[in-house]
Amino acid sequence: MDVRDFVGGHAEEFIADLSEWLTIPSISADPGHHGDVRASAEWLADHLRAIGFPEVEIWPAGTPQSPGLPAVFACWPAAEPGAVVALVYGHHDVQPVEPLAEWDSGPFEPAVRDGQLVARGASDDKGQVMVHSLGIRAHLAAAGAAAPPVTVKLLIEGEEESGSPHFADLLRAHADRLACDVIVVSDTSMWSAEQPSMCTGMRGVVDAEVCVRGPDTDLHSGTFGGGVANPLHAMAALLAGLHDADGRVTLPGFYDAVAPLTGRERALFARLPFDEKAWLADAGNSGASAGEAGFSTLERIWARPTAEVNGMWGGHTGPGGKTIIPRQAHAKLSFRLVAHQEPAQVIEALRAYVAAHTPPGLEAEVSARGPGVRPAFSPIDSPAVLAGKRAMERAFEREVLFTREGGSGPEADLADILGAPLVFIAVGLDSDRIHAPNEKVEIALLLKGAEAVAHLWDELAKLPTSR
Amino acid sequence: MDVRDFVGGHAEEFIADLSEWLTIPSISADPGHHGDVRASAEWLADHLRAIGFPEVEIWPAGTPQSPGLPAVFACWPAAEPGAVVALVYGHHDVQPVEPLAEWDSGPFEPAVRDGQLVARGASDDKGQVMVHSLGIRAHLAAAGAAAPPVTVKLLIEGEEESGSPHFADLLRAHADRLACDVIVVSDTSMWSAEQPSMCTGMRGVVDAEVCVRGPDTDLHSGTFGGGVANPLHAMAALLAGLHDADGRVTLPGFYDAVAPLTGRERALFARLPFDEKAWLADAGNSGASAGEAGFSTLERIWARPTAEVNGMWGGHTGPGGKTIIPRQAHAKLSFRLVAHQEPAQVIEALRAYVAAHTPPGLEAEVSARGPGVRPAFSPIDSPAVLAGKRAMERAFEREVLFTREGGSGPEADLADILGAPLVFIAVGLDSDRIHAPNEKVEIALLLKGAEAVAHLWDELAKLPTSR
Repeated sequence: MDVRDFVGGHAEEFIADLSEWLTIPSISADPGHHGDVRASAEWLADHLRAIGFPEVEIWPAGTPQSPGLPAVFACWPAAEPGAVVALVYGHHDVQPVEPLAEWDSGPFEPAVRDGQLVARGASDDKGQVMVHSLGIRAHLAAAGAAAPPVTVKLLIEGEEESGSPHFADLLRAHADRLACDVIVVSDTSMWSAEQPSMCTGMRGVVDAEVCVRGPDTDLHSGTFGGGVANPLHAMAALLAGLHDADGRVTLPGFYDAVAPLTGRERALFARLPFDEKAWLADAGNSGASAGEAGFSTLERIWARPTAEVNGMWGGHTGPGGKTIIPRQAHAKLSFRLVAHQEPAQVIEALRAYVAAHTPPGLEAEVSARGPGVRPAFSPIDSPAVLAGKRAMERAFEREVLFTREGGSGPEADLADILGAPLVFIAVGLDSDRIHAPNEKVEIALLLKGAEAVAHLWDELAKLPTSR
Repeated sequence: MDVRDFVGGHAEEFIADLSEWLTIPSISADPGHHGDVRASAEWLADHLRAIGFPEVEIWPAGTPQSPGLPAVFACWPAAEPGAVVALVYGHHDVQPVEPLAEWDSGPFEPAVRDGQLVARGASDDKGQVMVHSLGIRAHLAAAGAAAPPVTVKLLIEGEEESGSPHFADLLRAHADRLACDVIVVSDTSMWSAEQPSMCTGMRGVVDAEVCVRGPDTDLHSGTFGGGVANPLHAMAALLAGLHDADGRVTLPGFYDAVAPLTGRERALFARLPFDEKAWLADAGNSGASAGEAGFSTLERIWARPTAEVNGMWGGHTGPGGKTIIPRQAHAKLSFRLVAHQEPAQVIEALRAYVAAHTPPGLEAEVSARGPGVRPAFSPIDSPAVLAGKRAMERAFEREVLFTREGGSGPEADLADILGAPLVFIAVGLDSDRIHAPNEKVEIALLLKGAEAVAHLWDELAKLPTSR
């Protein structure tokens, strides 16, 4: 029996199992559902035991002071000692479901309609986790083996939709058990059902707040206006000066560590059938795209770092007028980072920029919010990505292209703490309405994903192991 | 009996009368004190009748829909028909008194301490109104006349501390009765007790709000950041671009109508003993002064127009971070205007500037708040100002210098609606703590003011009359 036959023959059972799991409302952001998150972990642990994983454990997260929600760990050791070790990352918690009235069926009453499975978590991320359950069984059936050719570990988190607050600590606490040669992330999306693709990077992010201080109190603009520095003017100039006329960030050294896009990656990006007009419409923007000169929109949002002002305020913001020179101005900034920028270095550059551009008579302060998230990046010609690509192409029988993601998740922590490369194997779509009413997943893509995973263990088995 | 003897001989009676008036808490901003504002008008009307004004009336302000507080009108016709007509402006309402705990004596229990009369309204503006009561009597006594050489009209408003909401309508409704050749304003201040001075202009003001709109909703900065225009960036650039490197306002044509400072006025300003360090300390500003290149601080705050950002906001302004591209950005602006700038033209220039600097993909809107206040200005070599200067110099026996005020009051309405030049005769000091606890006035300066007023009618009688 080959992989495709096994997957096809077990499709109904697979959907039934997944649907059962999807009835558990494991909303991590809602304390009223924390019992459900625990029940979801139990369900998954039972399931993984039932399909044959020799080691399955539920790992509590957090501390007594800051209790967390459990992750599920499972391990299916390779037949051969010294084999490659692969760690699969996913999560079993789900987003809240409001507004409930906009769902066509109950969010936790999975429904099959037009080849789609509709339920909260169907795509993000229970469906994609279950792809591994079907995939490893298909692999073993097709290979006629009792164990996979690589050691397959699963780490299925329970707090991803709450910002993974305890995840880095969990990784550090269990670093020995999680040791691996490659990390398989199954929590992203493909370009489209017709154009399979793999993500190869996620931007990092670092947040900061800038405060410009002037007089001790708001001043009357009649008495003082024109004679003293206005903190709002200084803030406007600071923010306006963050970008040059080409849309490049002006912080000193900002681009020094940026890995340039290779010609090959740019060429592959350009082959994606990107409808910029539709994308702008999605952004509620009727006008033109904007950004760093010399880069396409996909390059700008995936592979180039940014500085964004997320908020600013100062002075009189209520109804009517108030003719003051306000005492303070504030702004919240975030920087999207790409490999190999370091959050701490960007904050230092921001401090230097602000200090150099604060006019006499005013004081400015920069405070970082947290350590930031480092960018995650797997070059398209790296062995892990190439192995993943071969597995995907065997399943989809089409060329797999590459994407990146503009946002940030716990993936950088995985790569940094475990010291292994990332390979993104995922079959979600941007149209899956994750985080929104009527979340769905394409059943055909889940089954293709299971095929890809079945092939993945073969492909990863060829990687060198450094451990 | 000369003017000084009369004033000196009636000082005690003058202080007793003023103190009686000051016991009436005529706080126009507090509806609980509106009865007191009416009582204050009655007191003044009775007083003016008692000292001999032939015509005294109380004029209600406002409409049934928007009721106002009464003004007092009085007229003492000149002996000769065809004489110059002078209209004196002041107000009988006062500021609120909070924080009450910071007063050394009750705000409405006038107390004489160290040559100062301490009470709410002592300087702003009951004391300065009463200067005219003593001044006209001193004039008549010294001249041995039954009527002044100019027709003296008084218009003492009851809503100045509430923004004079009905004042322009009141002026229009009584334009015939108020017709005059010169307007004497007694509601400002002198440079210092040692350096008498006259104000010769007040800056106008016009307010506007700018809104920059981008996407329909806030966008995720990971997904869209770097690829679409950010309204906060555009707003920062708009605001930063309002001034050039020399601190000049960049709106097209902004300075076209500005009356340049004459060399003589600049030279006289420069003779004022201005302590810039102390002024900056008052502004709570430990650094340097700032503003338009090529002008002194006094020139900047008195005689040059400005653009000030009074408030701005947009995006996430609460605690913590939120990685969004916000959908909107807002700013409140005000422009201080000098003669002969027109508020409406400045708003038009702002609209043109914003339209020219709104990036593709964003929309911007400028809304003016109200019609604005036109600047008020009396050139230092104008006949009315020279007449006032001679009167002041006869009283103080010192050279009188010139100042301007950076802020705006109802004075521009007076000049515009009544079509007469302004002359500012006032003896308040910036140190009088008007609007603050322990408001006081220097009794010696009030008496000097009465002398100046006594001489003023002689000096104004020499003006040409255009009516």
